Amino acid sequence: MSGQVLDRVDHPPAGVREDPGGFDLSAPDGTRYRVDLTTAVLDPRNTLLARHLEGRRVVAFVSPAVDRLYGDRLRAYLDAHARRGQWTLHVIRTGEHHKTLAAAEHVCALAKADGLDRHGLMLAVGGGIVADVVGFAASIYARGIRYIKVNTTLVGQVDVGVGVKTGVNALQTKNMFGAYHPAHASLNDPAFLATLPHREIRCGLAEIVKMAVILDDGLFRTLERHPDVFRRLGDGDPDHSHGDLETYVLRTSMRLMMEELCPNLQEHDLARLVDFGHTFSPVVETAGGHRLEHGEAVAVDMALSAHVARLLGLADDETCERVVRLLRRIGLPVFDPLTCTPGLMTQALRASWQRRGRKLHLVVPTGIGKAAFVEELEDLPGEVLVAALEALAADGERRDA
Amino acid sequence: MSGQVLDRVDHPPAGVREDPGGFDLSAPDGTRYRVDLTTAVLDPRNTLLARHLEGRRVVAFVSPAVDRLYGDRLRAYLDAHARRGQWTLHVIRTGEHHKTLAAAEHVCALAKADGLDRHGLMLAVGGGIVADVVGFAASIYARGIRYIKVNTTLVGQVDVGVGVKTGVNALQTKNMFGAYHPAHASLNDPAFLATLPHREIRCGLAEIVKMAVILDDGLFRTLERHPDVFRRLGDGDPDHSHGDLETYVLRTSMRLMMEELCPNLQEHDLARLVDFGHTFSPVVETAGGHRLEHGEAVAVDMALSAHVARLLGLADDETCERVVRLLRRIGLPVFDPLTCTPGLMTQALRASWQRRGRKLHLVVPTGIGKAAFVEELEDLPGEVLVAALEALAADGERRDA
Ligand SMILES: NC(=O)c1ccc[n+]([C@@H]2O[C@H](COP(=O)([O-])OP(=O)(O)OC[C@H]3O[C@@H](n4cnc5c(N)ncnc54)[C@H](O)[C@@H]3O)[C@@H](O)[C@H]2O)c1
Ligand SMILES: NC(=O)c1ccc[n+]([C@@H]2O[C@H](COP(=O)([O-])OP(=O)(O)OC[C@H]3O[C@@H](n4cnc5c(N)ncnc54)[C@H](O)[C@@H]3O)[C@@H](O)[C@H]2O)c1
Ligand SMILES: [Zn+2]
Ligand SMILES: [Zn+2]
Repeated sequence: MSGQVLDRVDHPPAGVREDPGGFDLSAPDGTRYRVDLTTAVLDPRNTLLARHLEGRRVVAFVSPAVDRLYGDRLRAYLDAHARRGQWTLHVIRTGEHHKTLAAAEHVCALAKADGLDRHGLMLAVGGGIVADVVGFAASIYARGIRYIKVNTTLVGQVDVGVGVKTGVNALQTKNMFGAYHPAHASLNDPAFLATLPHREIRCGLAEIVKMAVILDDGLFRTLERHPDVFRRLGDGDPDHSHGDLETYVLRTSMRLMMEELCPNLQEHDLARLVDFGHTFSPVVETAGGHRLEHGEAVAVDMALSAHVARLLGLADDETCERVVRLLRRIGLPVFDPLTCTPGLMTQALRASWQRRGRKLHLVVPTGIGKAAFVEELEDLPGEVLVAALEALAADGERRDA
Repeated sequence: MSGQVLDRVDHPPAGVREDPGGFDLSAPDGTRYRVDLTTAVLDPRNTLLARHLEGRRVVAFVSPAVDRLYGDRLRAYLDAHARRGQWTLHVIRTGEHHKTLAAAEHVCALAKADGLDRHGLMLAVGGGIVADVVGFAASIYARGIRYIKVNTTLVGQVDVGVGVKTGVNALQTKNMFGAYHPAHASLNDPAFLATLPHREIRCGLAEIVKMAVILDDGLFRTLERHPDVFRRLGDGDPDHSHGDLETYVLRTSMRLMMEELCPNLQEHDLARLVDFGHTFSPVVETAGGHRLEHGEAVAVDMALSAHVARLLGLADDETCERVVRLLRRIGLPVFDPLTCTPGLMTQALRASWQRRGRKLHLVVPTGIGKAAFVEELEDLPGEVLVAALEALAADGERRDA
């Protein structure tokens, strides 16, 4: 034994702590970050964002839609809170096919041209695409600099925004390159959702239903009563109690997701409850030629997994029916005739098994708010899969949603 | 307060621990890694490398020179210790202009084509270029996978191999993109140095002199007695005592470097003693059109900094003289007429000041084995710089090395 011995830095105990303004996560590996839930985030009087900008050069990135809808407000906010000449804003393209290494390099080149050094920060205002590309760019820029996410989509607020993953697509693979790089701050403001297309809202709701099914029957029951919880927002000023409802759903989803991520931030454990809905869905998305959005494919997967659970005797009929019914009431698909075939779904199972270190780890509900893993490929016989797909087809044809 | 609270993982106290086989580093941020000092690393009977390969797919990368000299031995080693069909080897180009994002992407594409998933590992056998490119590729591949470095250059063994930095050049900037991504294992075997060109040996020695000047007068005295400690290796079988000497110098340099890096792995503290020799040298390298190698430019910088220390009254004449004399005896340059001008060196100071958060943090020796920072630009008056450069020019012309 030689060499200096340094004081050990004391971490708080690992876990997720909730307060009125948001959540603090402290992971067992020492990673710590906060996600805020706020309102009027771009109102110059709201200093939540401003306090992170102070004294730093800021290079901001937005998608075209966000620029159109919120660009002026964002510029005014930066003008009010960042020093003149110390901030710039760029519009970058979205769409899954623009989530590339070249896009991340472009973000870095723009930042470099703007004079950003390792003490500066990148600001991503938008959905998951902008957050993933800018987050990845920030993770490699000068070996990693700060970035802040302002999440403007529902998927952004309940999924991208509460985790530490960044990435771009490459080599024919989604998120092939990336980093676990926590944002310096992540801000959720439900007001953004008012302008979000309904289809994007539904995709976010698919991830919320996912959390409710596996972890929280109270949240599930709320969604059953209010499947349109976010959709009404677009139709004028929501009344006060509606705002409360929205905040409850958002806040609960954020907390559930963060608690699930916390012990396993870097995904070393491949048996993850949050993979519910994410076993069959990759093939539904890709083999379907991306007609279905991610959240829609997740909905199909959840419905299929619910039938599998029922047929394996792990869940009762009512559980399965409630899952399928809620998805349909939200307006999400529960069946995709093109891809929901025994052949393709068996392929999907094999690919997941490979990805998860040669274990199936299929998540299925065992009740509302409860779930279990089907661990081995052999635990899911071909006949069960076929029967589940047939039941699903019948669900898909029902017109009583 | 809500949410689950997890057990805190207990880290050992931070610091560097030495044992006969190498060093364990445990940083205050929880990062831990080991660097081994071994012999006959590619002898199939040496299982140091083998034990990290077990059960994993391995994609190895070497430079053309390393392939020529050690490729057969490496292939035989992999054949002996990795499962058939579970390993591949690729030759990638070296040279600073090949240390690019495209090179890292190419490494990833080769690995992908070989079927590497997130449980596999990349193996870099070579100098700093291969280690930096492959290390960076590993840091972004599937959000970060394992990689192992076998360091075959002196710079690789005392600098690249003991730290956690990876990177590629981009946007006209050295190491513009990168990550702090510790290798899963880092193996140093001095036998590789026997085939290394003398100029590369000298470049490694420049970094070793750096550590000796700022931290260890015993190491410095050893180098004064044996400035050819590594060079003799190439001239046939070194005798036993020479091997011991070599190991002492290597081991000491590794330990000193790791102790300096440990509390500041991510370089949040910009006042770093190991930046000795790295303030003027970037401009000596670039403005000189890369006629001088990095280590040679570092030598010039150390000599200049020693004169600055002397002229500021921080070091006595003898200290300065011994630094300059040792560098010359090693065969390193101490002056570069093309770039060692007041104009360019003032530029270099400003650039460092900018890079280091508007502080100069110039490291100068205050004796052999001791150093201090010149903190502010104003603390180094123009006349002192001019006088130091003149003294340096005289040193450079002396023929009594
Ligand atoms: N990093 C993670 O942990 C993680 C988690 C889930 C998903 N993702 C990634 O996120 C991406 C999907 O993100 P997304 O669903 O947010 O889609 P997105 O980023 O493509 O946004 C969808 C569209 O909505 C627009 N938009 C954004 N905010 C708006 C608003 N308030 N009003 C109107 N239009 C708005 C965008 O410009 C875009 O055209 C995928 O690439 C996925 O891989 C990442
Ligand atoms: N990541 C870090 O912390 C860190 C630290 C210092 C330097 N670096 C980087 O390392 C790079 C320089 O590394 P380097 O000095 O090792 O040079 P290098 O990797 O270019 O190697 C020099 C040459 O020697 C050849 N070679 C390697 N081993 C040999 C052997 N045993 N016998 C004969 N030839 C051999 C190589 O093929 C190459 O042609 C620079 O890009 C620098 O930025 C990184
Ligand atoms: Zn999803
Ligand atoms: Zn150096």
